[in-house]
Amino acid sequence: MTRTDTSRSKSPLSDQEYTPVVPSRGTLIPLSAHDVTLDGGFWGERQVVNANATLQHCLTWMEQLGWIGNFDRVAKGETGPPAGREFADSEIYKLLEALAWESTRSGGGWADEAFQALSARVVAAQQPDGYLNTRFGGPNQQPRYTDLEWGHELYCAGHLLQAAVARARDVPDDPLVAAAIRLADHICDVFGQDGRHSVCGHPEVELALVELARATGNPRYLHQATLFVQRRGRGTLDGGETPAEYFQDDVAVRDAKVLRGHAVRALYLSAGAVDVAVENGDDDLLNAVRDQWENTVAARTYLTGGMGSRHEGESFGDDFELPSDRAYSETCAGVASVMLSWRLLLAGGESKYADLIERTLFNVVATSPDSDGTSFFYVNPLQRNQAGIEAALDEPSPRASSSQRAPWFEVSCCPTNVARTLASLGGYIATKDIDGLQIHQYINGHIETLLPDGERIELTMETGYPFAGEVAVTFKSESTREWTLSLRVPSWARGRATVDDGSGARLIDGDVATVRRAFSTGMTVRLSLPIEPRFTYPDPRIDALRDCVAVERGPLVLCAESIDLPGGHHVRDLAVYSGGGFNSKGSDLTTVSGATGCGGAEGWPYASHTEDGVRLVGQLEVPLSPYFGWGERGPSEMRVWLPIARP
Amino acid sequence: MTRTDTSRSKSPLSDQEYTPVVPSRGTLIPLSAHDVTLDGGFWGERQVVNANATLQHCLTWMEQLGWIGNFDRVAKGETGPPAGREFADSEIYKLLEALAWESTRSGGGWADEAFQALSARVVAAQQPDGYLNTRFGGPNQQPRYTDLEWGHELYCAGHLLQAAVARARDVPDDPLVAAAIRLADHICDVFGQDGRHSVCGHPEVELALVELARATGNPRYLHQATLFVQRRGRGTLDGGETPAEYFQDDVAVRDAKVLRGHAVRALYLSAGAVDVAVENGDDDLLNAVRDQWENTVAARTYLTGGMGSRHEGESFGDDFELPSDRAYSETCAGVASVMLSWRLLLAGGESKYADLIERTLFNVVATSPDSDGTSFFYVNPLQRNQAGIEAALDEPSPRASSSQRAPWFEVSCCPTNVARTLASLGGYIATKDIDGLQIHQYINGHIETLLPDGERIELTMETGYPFAGEVAVTFKSESTREWTLSLRVPSWARGRATVDDGSGARLIDGDVATVRRAFSTGMTVRLSLPIEPRFTYPDPRIDALRDCVAVERGPLVLCAESIDLPGGHHVRDLAVYSGGGFNSKGSDLTTVSGATGCGGAEGWPYASHTEDGVRLVGQLEVPLSPYFGWGERGPSEMRVWLPIARP
Repeated sequence: MTRTDTSRSKSPLSDQEYTPVVPSRGTLIPLSAHDVTLDGGFWGERQVVNANATLQHCLTWMEQLGWIGNFDRVAKGETGPPAGREFADSEIYKLLEALAWESTRSGGGWADEAFQALSARVVAAQQPDGYLNTRFGGPNQQPRYTDLEWGHELYCAGHLLQAAVARARDVPDDPLVAAAIRLADHICDVFGQDGRHSVCGHPEVELALVELARATGNPRYLHQATLFVQRRGRGTLDGGETPAEYFQDDVAVRDAKVLRGHAVRALYLSAGAVDVAVENGDDDLLNAVRDQWENTVAARTYLTGGMGSRHEGESFGDDFELPSDRAYSETCAGVASVMLSWRLLLAGGESKYADLIERTLFNVVATSPDSDGTSFFYVNPLQRNQAGIEAALDEPSPRASSSQRAPWFEVSCCPTNVARTLASLGGYIATKDIDGLQIHQYINGHIETLLPDGERIELTMETGYPFAGEVAVTFKSESTREWTLSLRVPSWARGRATVDDGSGARLIDGDVATVRRAFSTGMTVRLSLPIEPRFTYPDPRIDALRDCVAVERGPLVLCAESIDLPGGHHVRDLAVYSGGGFNSKGSDLTTVSGATGCGGAEGWPYASHTEDGVRLVGQLEVPLSPYFGWGERGPSEMRVWLPIARP
Repeated sequence: MTRTDTSRSKSPLSDQEYTPVVPSRGTLIPLSAHDVTLDGGFWGERQVVNANATLQHCLTWMEQLGWIGNFDRVAKGETGPPAGREFADSEIYKLLEALAWESTRSGGGWADEAFQALSARVVAAQQPDGYLNTRFGGPNQQPRYTDLEWGHELYCAGHLLQAAVARARDVPDDPLVAAAIRLADHICDVFGQDGRHSVCGHPEVELALVELARATGNPRYLHQATLFVQRRGRGTLDGGETPAEYFQDDVAVRDAKVLRGHAVRALYLSAGAVDVAVENGDDDLLNAVRDQWENTVAARTYLTGGMGSRHEGESFGDDFELPSDRAYSETCAGVASVMLSWRLLLAGGESKYADLIERTLFNVVATSPDSDGTSFFYVNPLQRNQAGIEAALDEPSPRASSSQRAPWFEVSCCPTNVARTLASLGGYIATKDIDGLQIHQYINGHIETLLPDGERIELTMETGYPFAGEVAVTFKSESTREWTLSLRVPSWARGRATVDDGSGARLIDGDVATVRRAFSTGMTVRLSLPIEPRFTYPDPRIDALRDCVAVERGPLVLCAESIDLPGGHHVRDLAVYSGGGFNSKGSDLTTVSGATGCGGAEGWPYASHTEDGVRLVGQLEVPLSPYFGWGERGPSEMRVWLPIARP
């Protein structure tokens, strides 16, 4: 896409776009989530499940575990150890953010009532000076800001600010908005230029402060966010045995070459750094984050888009350290990666960011919740050698359990993160600029928006994507002038995608299919993406994947599950012939020719002859299904990358 | 070897074999370390470096860091936070154990003086009721035994007991022995049958109590060790987010199928369980540990013998989870593995245990210290993709730093563990039974011992092993009867080793070469082991090693180091032709034909064509050298497993 920097004047609170990120400058302008309606299809269905099941599910669990009650106790001046972990407050805030988005999306109703009731309990716990945290600063509690490394106070505050910003863009005079402003002012007082020169162990407040600055027009919050980003990487945090890299406190953001350390921290920080860079016109900082994104995607990202190779420190690994079985690929890192890529997409307009968003949404964010929206994966490995056991239904599960989705976790950041993402998903579908509309993600639904000059666009989008490759965009409005409709062509589709605006199908080599004209009501533009299954080979530098192949189909990564294998075979014993073709059964089942083996000598796993190795003993068609749905049918072994069988 | 269970009466303190483990029953009888003298050669040289450099090095660091001073402060009744970590006391105890062994080995001198001076400071800190720990129970300290999960009190106590047992077997009336007995009595009082039913988060006291029972003849300590082993696996420890498996508190020792959780903990516990089983005649328990050893060696052990696949929790991984770059393979786990295998060897006599001891000694224990004996690897990965930087010389390094050996660590368990192992190494070389002598490890040195019936044996062993395969055993004594000399044939040598007692070389298919006769002074038995380089292939179930090959030479694992590669090549870009032969240059440099490649597309590490993969661009002879010496010549990349090049 063209990259032109459009500077836009800051919006006052009463004139906000209602969408997750509202930069005052950048190449692309986000659409308001009001402007995009999802109607069924892959994402529309998930948004409804989120509204009807997940939000109440989160509310029920956090009430039951006393995490919400922590606020009531602080409001009453009661003391005692709070329920849950040191970041429990943030889960209530992320749920509030999700409720704010859902309330606006669905036009009020239960979500609005739930938001108001829950936020009232939060606001009641705020201290007169604006401080708000249920674990620190009260009688018999540890004093405020005495454990910046692990206390998560500013992290929690950041999530409150994000919830308030989501609300403010639709309901500016909400009490939570006022509370957030008081909290942000307090943070600026304590940590400002003349205050304490430190940062929070877990980044998050940075992007939240910028968003609050955008929402309120108050530059003080942007300045504070700038300070926090500048201070990071100066070794101000003392993690003991935990290396500074874990907190991204090892290298200044603008000097770093690649994302490293705790993945969610690194991605939230990067998103905040982009926000700071965009608002300050700091192209050096922006380009530094772009380079880090490039290097991270090139060598530290799973095929699913997942990030975080290590359970240890929930962290990125070294370059090309991408084991399948030990992949951490936290759901929250997927959410955070979408947040970062979206900001970079708005800033510069490059399709590669939307490509990664699509990959991550379909293969990480959509993988976490089950189809009922009431149990979740926290980590998203690409292989499970044991089927594992059912997760506990009546108590929180350990966070890194991964054989089965669990209703709730002791550290339960992922369910509420999925909830806020799905509730605000309309904001990530398309953008606009003076020249027209850019559609980045393919959904079933409706878009109605005004270009900057007032040109009105209304259209519907119909597709069976990702299970079918046809996307039909039909106009419901008459153009008063020519403009450009841009349709993203995913990297795997380039050279094979076609677009047809009625004048015949045209092959698209580049990363967007564009149609420039005045569009009339009833006119349809058809995009055709080749979604047949395809083999994908790993970079030879990835030790964990050597001599393996994966199968992708459109934007979906496929996997083999033991539950689909005949004869009690284990996924560990599978191999596939990568030279052959595929058979498809129905819309979402693919098979590939393969073999089963029985591998290895007994007693010692290293031998002097390769013939002590795997012996292929049976031919079979290996059934493959979308990774996002794995584990839905009970405990199962699973693997994405399959060893290549030699005929 | 034949497996006959010889029950021996318990020895009183004054009549001890001077050797690390003295079971009262079992197939093989350990030789006294007095009976075995190492004289130069691979291990003899290391024992001298240990005596001349490592022991003083450890003493200096622990004095400087105040870890020894902790005892002085407690002795004076002073309070305040102790120096070092919660297990610092144990490092002093392991050094005391090393000094005790070295004092006896070298006949007193500096090591004896150092032992006496250091142990006096320890004993002075003991409380009147026998309790001894510098971190708990004093004024302004946390009360005793209030943090069994993480406090390491019984772990530290165990190491004190081990030091005292080492001393007691040579100097029974030493004050440290009396202190250990007081401490053990205190532990029995607190944790006995009618006491507190719990265990220490870190096993170690179990094996120490059995050894103290053996050394003193007091069955109370064996009974207490039995209780501790029985209680393990009952979920008595609360690790919070740390799973019970970490502490081996998930499954009872006799019910477990494989080693799991924290590797050092699992191995110490298993060693203690063998001691308990042997003393109690509990064959079910003994067989349970044997099965766990089998399953662990078959699927959870590195080619080096190293154990522990995960940095997270310093733990064993799942079966076949054996990544090279992220291998933890802690030096202490190597030491602990030797301790476990030695006990199983004594119990049943099977050569496989001595095989693993040899592999682990040469490739883990010998790898840790540099040739000066003053810097150490804590973790022993099989691959390093970055050369890394020099370790700090003037401050402790983080424990898991692995690119360079470090003089000392914040958690510095490994240097003292290496020290006590090298100082007592004579005890692990050979055993005896009524029928003769079994030589398990090949050294340069001298053995003089009495068989149970008083038959005297004296012999010298000469070898260039592991760099040469010839071992000459020459008798210095006249037999009064026929007896059997057994020489272990390592698994890789079977079918190719020969033995010659003067009547001509005889090919050996089995796991021992035996010569049965009356031996005369001057008679030489020659064992010849085929130590030419050989290719070794991984089990196909090990994802991390697919399509790779390693080279071994005798008992040594070889590796490629970037420092040896021409033209600035990286080890990541190497591939080797596994069909070809080897060239040897000198005694310890091997080369293999290979190629260098440049791998991978830019931007995204997954491609639709394999030809986007590695491109072999240059042929070269890849130099390989013994893994134990890697990193000795400065920062270097390193890898053991090399991708197979296709012609």
